Amino acid sequence: MDFPELIRKKRDGQPLAREEIFDFVQRYTRGEIPDYQCSSLLMAIFFRGLSRQETADLTEAMMRSGEVLDLSEFPQPKVDKHSTGGVGDKTSLVVAPVAAAGGLVVPMISGRGLGHTGGTLDKLESIPGFNPRLSLAEFRRVLGVCGMGLIGQTEALAPADRKLYALRDVTATVESMPLISASIMSKKLAEGIDGLVLDVKTGSGAFMKTLEDSRELASRMVEIGAAFKKKVAAVITDMSQPLGNAVGNALEVIECIETLKGRGPHDLVQLSRELSAQMFIVGAVEKSIDAARAKFDSLMASGKPLETLARTIAEQGGDAGVVEDYSRLPSARQEDSIVAWEDGWVSGLEAFSIGRASMVLGAGRERLDSVIDPGVGLVFEKKVGDRVSAGERLCILLANDESRLARARAMLRAAISISPEPVAAPPLILEKLESRN
Amino acid sequence: MDFPELIRKKRDGQPLAREEIFDFVQRYTRGEIPDYQCSSLLMAIFFRGLSRQETADLTEAMMRSGEVLDLSEFPQPKVDKHSTGGVGDKTSLVVAPVAAAGGLVVPMISGRGLGHTGGTLDKLESIPGFNPRLSLAEFRRVLGVCGMGLIGQTEALAPADRKLYALRDVTATVESMPLISASIMSKKLAEGIDGLVLDVKTGSGAFMKTLEDSRELASRMVEIGAAFKKKVAAVITDMSQPLGNAVGNALEVIECIETLKGRGPHDLVQLSRELSAQMFIVGAVEKSIDAARAKFDSLMASGKPLETLARTIAEQGGDAGVVEDYSRLPSARQEDSIVAWEDGWVSGLEAFSIGRASMVLGAGRERLDSVIDPGVGLVFEKKVGDRVSAGERLCILLANDESRLARARAMLRAAISISPEPVAAPPLILEKLESRN
Repeated sequence: MDFPELIRKKRDGQPLAREEIFDFVQRYTRGEIPDYQCSSLLMAIFFRGLSRQETADLTEAMMRSGEVLDLSEFPQPKVDKHSTGGVGDKTSLVVAPVAAAGGLVVPMISGRGLGHTGGTLDKLESIPGFNPRLSLAEFRRVLGVCGMGLIGQTEALAPADRKLYALRDVTATVESMPLISASIMSKKLAEGIDGLVLDVKTGSGAFMKTLEDSRELASRMVEIGAAFKKKVAAVITDMSQPLGNAVGNALEVIECIETLKGRGPHDLVQLSRELSAQMFIVGAVEKSIDAARAKFDSLMASGKPLETLARTIAEQGGDAGVVEDYSRLPSARQEDSIVAWEDGWVSGLEAFSIGRASMVLGAGRERLDSVIDPGVGLVFEKKVGDRVSAGERLCILLANDESRLARARAMLRAAISISPEPVAAPPLILEKLESRN
Repeated sequence: MDFPELIRKKRDGQPLAREEIFDFVQRYTRGEIPDYQCSSLLMAIFFRGLSRQETADLTEAMMRSGEVLDLSEFPQPKVDKHSTGGVGDKTSLVVAPVAAAGGLVVPMISGRGLGHTGGTLDKLESIPGFNPRLSLAEFRRVLGVCGMGLIGQTEALAPADRKLYALRDVTATVESMPLISASIMSKKLAEGIDGLVLDVKTGSGAFMKTLEDSRELASRMVEIGAAFKKKVAAVITDMSQPLGNAVGNALEVIECIETLKGRGPHDLVQLSRELSAQMFIVGAVEKSIDAARAKFDSLMASGKPLETLARTIAEQGGDAGVVEDYSRLPSARQEDSIVAWEDGWVSGLEAFSIGRASMVLGAGRERLDSVIDPGVGLVFEKKVGDRVSAGERLCILLANDESRLARARAMLRAAISISPEPVAAPPLILEKLESRN
């Protein structure tokens, strides 16, 4: 079938056959279909959607566009966690060591942050010497030694997704549920995992702003997992305010280490506990959620997850001393703060604007080629629902540039609201979904 | 505004501002917007449509992407006719000379045929020596001498349309009412006309297969005309069977000359009369449709239109002797025919398949680079509604290649149906629309 005919088929609402989808992905990856035809098809998919079967076929075609890791040499269940991204969203550095210490293999491949969200890769790179660009052979070795590994996206896995995403990004075709879910799942399934736990964020700081959209994305990804006979669980969690207290790369690494030491902020601990427990269930090392949560608690008390993280850092060339000495991490020269302008209750920490403010400080990147300042960021001392008195500190800003500090401060000030009436903290874990395999 | 943002705007159903549309067309024409972004926008327009205002703005932007002819040196009203294309659709070669002989200036710029339809340009090129590639200066001179001129599309007029059409053709974004209407009208309005008569074909041999679609296209084009303060009339006409008896390039030229000599087939005469009359009304040289039709009749009786055509052919380098001696035109070596296989009434001459059959003979082009054989084609001796006896000839095939003849014959046979019951000829002129300027 010639390609315009295939575009027309989707445009007119007819389903694409598996062979057509595979043919498209293979030819596009090889450069045999021009971008202008591909973007036209992507826009038709934006409007017409993809059926469950088409989405599974697209996911598989993208997954098979490159290497698919075979981790069968490891006897443990291979389970990963993926978050759709948010502000202060740092559970990976807590959950991966807990899961690995608890008997899973966690082959975690992470992305960089863009726009208002942070990326695990950027956080890791704030650790002196840490190398997230391992070859697949080195990655395999680290997985064997530590039970976990933390690397960045590689050309070897799902190259079709990378090429398609780059095109979607400049043709207004990112915001398509089937394309988003196929993109995420193709990369994750190429990791050679048995199971996956998805943290689908919802709220102003997330890519999905509404619960309805988050629910749809979560259920689509769980469906794809089912089509691949993988155990997939999804948790929909709040991103109306930042997760934890710290926003910024080295600051978030410190907060994760503190959490592994038992001193983490309540919401970060709660979510890490739930995601870890889900990983134990998905990996079938625990049968009940209560037992899985108890496993998290005992692992945290054992200190093993912190050792696992330190070892992983060391095996990937980083300075493992950071877990004891935070001064080895990058820091900022300037400190400023925002204090409560009246008595009351914190009623809003609008996550999108807070993400933008931290980006302005240098903690995130506005463009793909922006350079990150690993030491800067924000530390909240109050979260939504907390009582505050006028003059009490709400948030610390850590910066390396006066004018950026001033801009970020103004944005941050506008993102915080105080109510004269008591306000409840928003619920953190909103819904759970899982596949029936 | 960056371009992905503009795509997103249309994708999400928001109207584009006039400046945005002009900016898009100008930048795309200059090569500053990549094809992959343009095709994504075109597909979004396919789904979201364009408002009346957006369509007028797009038409104007495309029209202004090149030169706009200024024919104000001619005192006569400048009026053109445009057909959306069909099989055996040859009225231009009748209507243009009639209108010119009747006091209008007809600056007719025509396209080539593609697929199952013929193009005026291909028909003209069957006349030995005829040059449809005049410079605009030469075109102006011919218009001055003859009151009409017949040229092909030129890079000088509406280059944005040409570039956009080429992209639409390979990205499944041709079939969009606002894009089709803006494309046609931008080219026509660039001719510097005061008024325009549109012949919107409907039926299997037309691009618009249903009356509803034809009506929408006609009304959109009339609306665009109104936005430009031009007099535009549209006639919706039948294309369920070929127009006239001849299908093929030289064969159609002969049929037009015969028509100008008063010996044309009934349907071709009827439609040419209506279109000419509408041109006289639009050009305001007649006030009532009855007077305009009478003008057609008296002009035909005077022989002036034939003289005008002959003169135009001569002025454009062609052999004007063809109007008296058809043997100067290309012909075919082989002749075959299809005869009635039973007594009855011709109940169907399915225009699309007949167009395809004539293309197979070599009268049309399957691809942009196909070479046309000007001498081949079909001549129908019976039309829908005609009574036939078994063995009576229905159609003559004129060919230059045995295998093409055999293929065309089979297609043609399947396109003809005979009913044992009487069948009425389909009405030719279905509806009329006009702008209120």
